[in-house]
Amino acid sequence: MNAPAPLSEASRPAGEFDLIRRHFQRPGHPRTPGVALGIGDDCALMAPRAGHQLAISTDMLVEGRHFLPGTDPVALGHKALAVNLSDLAAMGARPLGFTLALALPDANDPWLAAFAGGLFALADAHACPLVGGDTTRGPLNICITVFGELHPGHALRRDAARAGDDLYLSGRTGEARLALALLRGEPWALQALGSDALQTLPDLGQRLDRPTPRLALGQALAGLAHAAIDVSDGLAGDLGHILSASDLGAEIQLGSLPVAPALQRLPPAQQEDCLLHGGDDYELLFTAAPDKREAIEAAALDSATPVTRIGCLTAAPGLWAVPADGQRRAVPTRGFDHFG
Amino acid sequence: MNAPAPLSEASRPAGEFDLIRRHFQRPGHPRTPGVALGIGDDCALMAPRAGHQLAISTDMLVEGRHFLPGTDPVALGHKALAVNLSDLAAMGARPLGFTLALALPDANDPWLAAFAGGLFALADAHACPLVGGDTTRGPLNICITVFGELHPGHALRRDAARAGDDLYLSGRTGEARLALALLRGEPWALQALGSDALQTLPDLGQRLDRPTPRLALGQALAGLAHAAIDVSDGLAGDLGHILSASDLGAEIQLGSLPVAPALQRLPPAQQEDCLLHGGDDYELLFTAAPDKREAIEAAALDSATPVTRIGCLTAAPGLWAVPADGQRRAVPTRGFDHFG
Repeated sequence: MNAPAPLSEASRPAGEFDLIRRHFQRPGHPRTPGVALGIGDDCALMAPRAGHQLAISTDMLVEGRHFLPGTDPVALGHKALAVNLSDLAAMGARPLGFTLALALPDANDPWLAAFAGGLFALADAHACPLVGGDTTRGPLNICITVFGELHPGHALRRDAARAGDDLYLSGRTGEARLALALLRGEPWALQALGSDALQTLPDLGQRLDRPTPRLALGQALAGLAHAAIDVSDGLAGDLGHILSASDLGAEIQLGSLPVAPALQRLPPAQQEDCLLHGGDDYELLFTAAPDKREAIEAAALDSATPVTRIGCLTAAPGLWAVPADGQRRAVPTRGFDHFG
Repeated sequence: MNAPAPLSEASRPAGEFDLIRRHFQRPGHPRTPGVALGIGDDCALMAPRAGHQLAISTDMLVEGRHFLPGTDPVALGHKALAVNLSDLAAMGARPLGFTLALALPDANDPWLAAFAGGLFALADAHACPLVGGDTTRGPLNICITVFGELHPGHALRRDAARAGDDLYLSGRTGEARLALALLRGEPWALQALGSDALQTLPDLGQRLDRPTPRLALGQALAGLAHAAIDVSDGLAGDLGHILSASDLGAEIQLGSLPVAPALQRLPPAQQEDCLLHGGDDYELLFTAAPDKREAIEAAALDSATPVTRIGCLTAAPGLWAVPADGQRRAVPTRGFDHFG
């Protein structure tokens, strides 16, 4: 951890340690339970509460790959942490803290201030402090590792789905993919929504830039639901990971999938593609026993998160979409592959 | 954590999940105590032993910044983990596991196999399993976050040095800097050692490419020494972090610093520069009460690590070098600054 205590002002007027201090150290910030030592030493020291496990996830965001050059740094700071918190949500864990490793092409002060602003607004909303990190010069790259805690045995593992489980989705899928298509100027999206759709439908762009990690729902589901995953590579692709890990199949009732107003303006084939294969949604996809329907409804209500029952898990393998007319068809479980 | 369980062979013949599985998943690898769930879910699950804290450190290595293009991938795999384990050593922690986030310009199979080989050889030597990660396409960037455990109160914190403490160094400093100078063809190094020095002195290159994290020593010092840091930015610069955090000064007895044979061939000024400001050494620099000298010797012996007493901590601020002739002079606590 090369984020040491700052030396005197005189010796490093505009250097790495100064950057770190100005944007990422927050001396007045209240100490968080579980964090014994934060930024400024070789390691951070943390402890989950007695009888709890630690959940850990890491994600790397690369310019041009995960976000477009010129992306608003406030949104980027939010999103870099949100995608990691979403992994904690999908495990049912409560956030404890995170580390940030950052490669920057130059020491751009306004950019860093905006990035840190977006990052800390989300971190503070979930009482998840920055406990350590590393800053270096290089092509823009943001690597966050996040830590949470949960009761052993309550984790929402991908391999824990059972045949006959109900399949649920929080929120709705597809809007982030549609927003990306509009940003990129993909003709099918422009034709259906018009070239000014991102201006007239600001919520659409927010779904791409500012995903909401479903932490309250994830914690409410821990010990109640069976398997869960967060939808980052598309509903079908991520469901495929649960099916593969649990050695099961699934049916999705197409008519039950919530469709955002913007998606309702798409032709049916493209609407379905966004719903099933969109990606970047960061909604929770989870399974639970049918006798837990009331408890799932209560968990959704308690966490103020919309949840929809969209299908079921089957002992027979394969992923099937069942349209309103009843003629089911196979759905490929493809997701986005960085080296495909 | 986008390192999910692999889908069927057919659907992803040469993609991301295949890469991960082939090089980083090790199904036959024995489970490690403390790791409840490893690669293949949204999060890894770990638990330090009851009554222990978790120590966490993260480091990002960028091509052209931390290693030269064309660096042997076996050495790179070793070094990427070694610099992180060195942070655990400097805290006195025992390794539990690590996550790896990797941006790669392409899916280069032989490179990945070699990188994974170097990485896992060191990980296995310290029973420190890979518990999760992320792989993406992008300019080469390696971000490792490492986890260890220690007794609360035993951590070797930078702010824990006391006036009157002895100052100790494991191993010796300067060889990595000299090896880098030879690699880069810096004239002062070539003149002193000749252009074939890296061939005739293979140990010198090893000090740059394959640093040894001093984990056994660090654990032996936990609860015994006061402050510690690992020397990554040069002895003086890293000592400066202890002095700043502990609000103290220090004197280094220049004559007591161990000098490697290769460094003995340098003119005095350059030799001293390598010793005090070299960097990339990954030795432990630590302080302990004078009445603990026998215990420190025993810790060095038990951990089979050479340790030298090189000076002392002073209540008066400043860092001073004391040569054999006794005329002390101020030493700048400059280290390497990525944005200086």
